Amino acid sequence: MSQEPLEVGMLLYPGFTLLDLVGPLTALWMHSNIYLFWKTLEPVISDSGKAMVPTATLAKRPAKLDVLFVPGGFGTPAAMEDAELIAFLRDAARQSVYITSVCSGSLILGAAGLLNGYQATTHWAAHEQLKSFGAVPVKARVVADRNRITGGGVTAGIDFGLAVLAKLRGVGEAQFVQLAMEYDPQPPFDCGSPEEAAPAIVQRVREMIARLPDAQTAG
Amino acid sequence: MSQEPLEVGMLLYPGFTLLDLVGPLTALWMHSNIYLFWKTLEPVISDSGKAMVPTATLAKRPAKLDVLFVPGGFGTPAAMEDAELIAFLRDAARQSVYITSVCSGSLILGAAGLLNGYQATTHWAAHEQLKSFGAVPVKARVVADRNRITGGGVTAGIDFGLAVLAKLRGVGEAQFVQLAMEYDPQPPFDCGSPEEAAPAIVQRVREMIARLPDAQTAG
Repeated sequence: MSQEPLEVGMLLYPGFTLLDLVGPLTALWMHSNIYLFWKTLEPVISDSGKAMVPTATLAKRPAKLDVLFVPGGFGTPAAMEDAELIAFLRDAARQSVYITSVCSGSLILGAAGLLNGYQATTHWAAHEQLKSFGAVPVKARVVADRNRITGGGVTAGIDFGLAVLAKLRGVGEAQFVQLAMEYDPQPPFDCGSPEEAAPAIVQRVREMIARLPDAQTAG
Repeated sequence: MSQEPLEVGMLLYPGFTLLDLVGPLTALWMHSNIYLFWKTLEPVISDSGKAMVPTATLAKRPAKLDVLFVPGGFGTPAAMEDAELIAFLRDAARQSVYITSVCSGSLILGAAGLLNGYQATTHWAAHEQLKSFGAVPVKARVVADRNRITGGGVTAGIDFGLAVLAKLRGVGEAQFVQLAMEYDPQPPFDCGSPEEAAPAIVQRVREMIARLPDAQTAG
């Protein structure tokens, strides 16, 4: 850790998924100055109903970021239509070394025009949507294409965060953090991907995701 | 999800680890009313420096909880000596169906006398400390002994949360949530446990953990 801390900017927005944010944050914070951005410094309510506190406003971002990061969440559809948020991302992206996301955060990057022509991933149930932004969907836990790095759904943020740390600060530091966070996962069931899960469960998750835009409009 | 929501009380305290809390929270929130407890409703700063907002005070807890949960974190040593926090846990435990923790949260349960005679787990680097509270350390990702359920370090909270959900709402619901959070982990390195990691990395994490009580006193 003799190097300078990474400058990492993570976007908050109403209805983000806590774990999408906290996985990468936990992988990166010991090596980084982390900024949690939102329009104001008031708490931002996640899709679980619980809130985190921003540490910087969109208007006062650092001049340059090593990593610009966007989490996914049930609030994605509204975030994709938020002109101020999208303008912030376009502007910040110009001065960011890596432009990144986890889960449906990649759809927000896509809406900002930041994935056009890039390979990318997202939550398994949203893969096809990437095409509408000119992105090339790739089924993988973490996808890196030039300076875009995207992670799959929710828990993929841990794999993503460690991959980003390995790239920017070396394998040894990523291994240190992986052991510190005891990342030796033992999922209780073999159903973490649509290929493994029972069809009825796959269908139930698809229906939940499909209801999202309407739910946002209604809410 | 035709059953009543679970009543889940999760303790915040200065220096808790975000992922210890957010893993179980993400596994449980769609089936639960989740209360984030602290002395006041002011934001509580985690060991990463980022804050979450409590939703209930220690003084105004629900009459009965299905799950009482304590996360670990770099703030554990101070929390173990916080008389008001310990009194709250002893009192809330009497009216909780399951008494649970992740990572060094089990040391706080231990300090409250709630693990005496129980099998339990904690972060791998803190296992021996469980004995000083009369607990029987077990090396496992999730350990259940009667109504105590404890998880290992940090990321074990995801396995823990799904195990708790499977126990209280059935395997089908836990599988639904596992697929929704795309929990199909692919750790980038084989070093998530001290048995797998290189000795120098194991030593480095041990030294970080060993410095904690002094760091807390200094802070």
